[in-house]
Amino acid sequence: MKTFFNVQDLGPLQAALKEAEEVKANRFAYQQLGKNKTLLMIFFNNSLRTRLSTQKAAMNLGMNVIVLDVNAGAWKLETERGVIMDGDKSEHLLEAIPVMGCYCDIIAVRSFAGLSDRDYDYAETIVGQFVKYSGRPVVAMETATVHPLQAFADLITIHEKWTELNANPSNQPSHKRPKVVLTWAPHCRALPQAVPNSFAQWMNAADVDFVITQPEGYELDPKFVGDARVEYDQHKALEDADFVYAKNWSCPGVKNKGNYGKILSKDASWTIDSEHMSWTNYGYFMHCLPVRRGLIVTDDVIESPHSLVIPEAANREISAEVVLKRVLETL
Amino acid sequence: MKTFFNVQDLGPLQAALKEAEEVKANRFAYQQLGKNKTLLMIFFNNSLRTRLSTQKAAMNLGMNVIVLDVNAGAWKLETERGVIMDGDKSEHLLEAIPVMGCYCDIIAVRSFAGLSDRDYDYAETIVGQFVKYSGRPVVAMETATVHPLQAFADLITIHEKWTELNANPSNQPSHKRPKVVLTWAPHCRALPQAVPNSFAQWMNAADVDFVITQPEGYELDPKFVGDARVEYDQHKALEDADFVYAKNWSCPGVKNKGNYGKILSKDASWTIDSEHMSWTNYGYFMHCLPVRRGLIVTDDVIESPHSLVIPEAANREISAEVVLKRVLETL
Amino acid sequence: MKTFFNVQDLGPLQAALKEAEEVKANRFAYQQLGKNKTLLMIFFNNSLRTRLSTQKAAMNLGMNVIVLDVNAGAWKLETERGVIMDGDKSEHLLEAIPVMGCYCDIIAVRSFAGLSDRDYDYAETIVGQFVKYSGRPVVAMETATVHPLQAFADLITIHEKWTELNANPSNQPSHKRPKVVLTWAPHCRALPQAVPNSFAQWMNAADVDFVITQPEGYELDPKFVGDARVEYDQHKALEDADFVYAKNWSCPGVKNKGNYGKILSKDASWTIDSEHMSWTNYGYFMHCLPVRRGLIVTDDVIESPHSLVIPEAANREISAEVVLKRVLETL
Repeated sequence: MKTFFNVQDLGPLQAALKEAEEVKANRFAYQQLGKNKTLLMIFFNNSLRTRLSTQKAAMNLGMNVIVLDVNAGAWKLETERGVIMDGDKSEHLLEAIPVMGCYCDIIAVRSFAGLSDRDYDYAETIVGQFVKYSGRPVVAMETATVHPLQAFADLITIHEKWTELNANPSNQPSHKRPKVVLTWAPHCRALPQAVPNSFAQWMNAADVDFVITQPEGYELDPKFVGDARVEYDQHKALEDADFVYAKNWSCPGVKNKGNYGKILSKDASWTIDSEHMSWTNYGYFMHCLPVRRGLIVTDDVIESPHSLVIPEAANREISAEVVLKRVLETL
Repeated sequence: MKTFFNVQDLGPLQAALKEAEEVKANRFAYQQLGKNKTLLMIFFNNSLRTRLSTQKAAMNLGMNVIVLDVNAGAWKLETERGVIMDGDKSEHLLEAIPVMGCYCDIIAVRSFAGLSDRDYDYAETIVGQFVKYSGRPVVAMETATVHPLQAFADLITIHEKWTELNANPSNQPSHKRPKVVLTWAPHCRALPQAVPNSFAQWMNAADVDFVITQPEGYELDPKFVGDARVEYDQHKALEDADFVYAKNWSCPGVKNKGNYGKILSKDASWTIDSEHMSWTNYGYFMHCLPVRRGLIVTDDVIESPHSLVIPEAANREISAEVVLKRVLETL
Repeated sequence: MKTFFNVQDLGPLQAALKEAEEVKANRFAYQQLGKNKTLLMIFFNNSLRTRLSTQKAAMNLGMNVIVLDVNAGAWKLETERGVIMDGDKSEHLLEAIPVMGCYCDIIAVRSFAGLSDRDYDYAETIVGQFVKYSGRPVVAMETATVHPLQAFADLITIHEKWTELNANPSNQPSHKRPKVVLTWAPHCRALPQAVPNSFAQWMNAADVDFVITQPEGYELDPKFVGDARVEYDQHKALEDADFVYAKNWSCPGVKNKGNYGKILSKDASWTIDSEHMSWTNYGYFMHCLPVRRGLIVTDDVIESPHSLVIPEAANREISAEVVLKRVLETL
């Protein structure tokens, strides 16, 4: 595996889930793979879960880790040719990025969407430069449009819970495969679409019935929606759901590019409370964290035994370890 | 050992001092204990000695270390239930802290007193949350009211020097056990009470004669003063002392809660100079560092052969290693 | 090796170059040397290449690494005796520096020239304090006047390329030893002299014909210029050159101390373009990076097959590893 951005990069999901199980059961078993290999983690944006879980995963694999915090505002690389660089850009990407590649074996990059220029964000300009010029495998730690380490951890969590439910004869699920609903929920700030984009991409590839529900104007990019059923009526969407994945996102600008990155609604009726959960099939609540209670979800729902938010976070270590392991195997 | 805040957490001090000796003699002998174990060090406040010494100690033990710097001002966790989180608090502690626990085996936390709300500080609100919700052993790297890694290092230093003095027949100390004096000294800024609190707690538990001296109004909290002799006349207190531990602290607010955190005196007659030391029994000068010369102590005293400030700092590595070793042994 | 500041610290260069070759061929072969040894890297200034390459080198050697970022402005150590420290300096160097030495085996320091006080900068006041008071070997990661890890990497790069050229019978170089030219080039900001100083010092010690060229007023300090040929006519200097090392520096204040640190010229005719390179003997372009295109060098020159800037950066790992290995061998 030379890059990790999309679900396709991982190959067949059943094999990946099997490998996640093995890694989780024995997370220090692969240290020969990582010996004398260095992961460079570059953060253009703040990180808590991703930073800790990815670093932990790399250390599980016996790797050395170097963390580089780059102030997003200070990262002013010149990208054009023929320019006299006498302004605030002190280095050209054609030097900066290959140099970083010199000192490591794998590069992991976090670089959020700016939410002001849809074309720039959806072209994945920043991480694309790392893929093109670093000479190293590149792993996304949330880019402008995708967050695959989160989506993989979410899939592992759904798979574990579904397997557990099916293993209990007294609690036979009513469906052959789980119904998973991604639902928009309100927020006070404009957030990127990376998490819902990747979650949609991964659920479309997984063995689940997948539904996306959001207010008008919040339609995700078609390349991520894929064949998912889209339902504007949240109540209908949640009916009989086994897993409810709540997340806010700002306008993806699909129907009206001028609205890209804007907040179109703060409709509190979309907040997941116990009434919403009552419409589901004893469904489980999921969220990538950090989560704002009272906006996305109520206290009782997120604290209930049917909340999976902490297991999802714990599985970030596992998803990162499987991904790094796969990359190490191809070095 | 599941938490390390108070002297009682360490069990019998003689055994701990013996273990410190063994660790110091062979600090890399316990790497099997720390293999594949991760220490997460969380700093809400700046650190030089604590950061370096604790990290070194963990690496001595073969542990992996992840350092997380959290801007104290930016750490705005919601702690209430039933709140709509549409303000500046982006995460609830009930999610944030368990998640940190997911990615490590031991958590070490530094979080200073705010010095504005005595009840909040002395309730140890922040580190208490880590103990309650992280699911991991928690080691104090200076909290609102205690700094036990420093106090343990100080005790080790006193023990080493006293043992050395007793081993020299020509330099037989005049006391059976050392007289240790904790003396307040002036400072230009309002400082927390964590260091004197812990020092008092540890000296009360140790085999020493312990005296505390400070101006009126600077009385430490009774739970730390314990059975120590308290003497308002610094000269009397220092007479015949073997060890002089100087430290500034702001008003602990014991007699007048409204004065909590305030500077009540800058009386320069409390500064430890050679005259002060002449009242002692060829006493040794101690301070936790950083120290402001001319306020706490004069140049000649801190630079004299009877200054122990550098050995104290060096023993921070040892105290941290013993503590982490004890925690690892109970994992 | 107890300190690494000057070319003399490394001993005979042929032996060092041989060792660099061995290290590069097998960079993980010396991990027994670094086992349980700790490198403390202290940065008073930002760093990308130096930070990554030195950390990588230390990890190659099996060392533990602790990185300490010190805000240059915040590093206010008192250096005088007899002062009442009631101002903004919270610690005296006589405590701060020995304490850092307590927790590591080797100290590496970056501390740039302030460019306002020539005497202070050229006395190497800051790093000199580390040498004097830390009790540990000190390695320069760019000081006020030297950047020897860069110069050593540059020498390795020249040596590799010259060896490669000589190994190819069809491409026999016209000289017995390479002609190396250090040329000033314009820049929009005032830069220190550390890189040209060290490059000059190392080239004077190496088996090359060395020429320095710069406009009037930019003369480097005589102790670095040594026996180099100095040529004010850039065209004449570059004629027949095998290696062109371009770099900007501000006025070294040799002829007029009042001009120290100033920009005396932005003469664009000194920018290295393809015409400049045409004057050379199919010469190779070198620069330490980061480089501002259009000022120092044109796009076509730095992107040409005769540009060595990326190999130079890659060799930073090797020069750091040889240096740390040498220091470890004398511990």
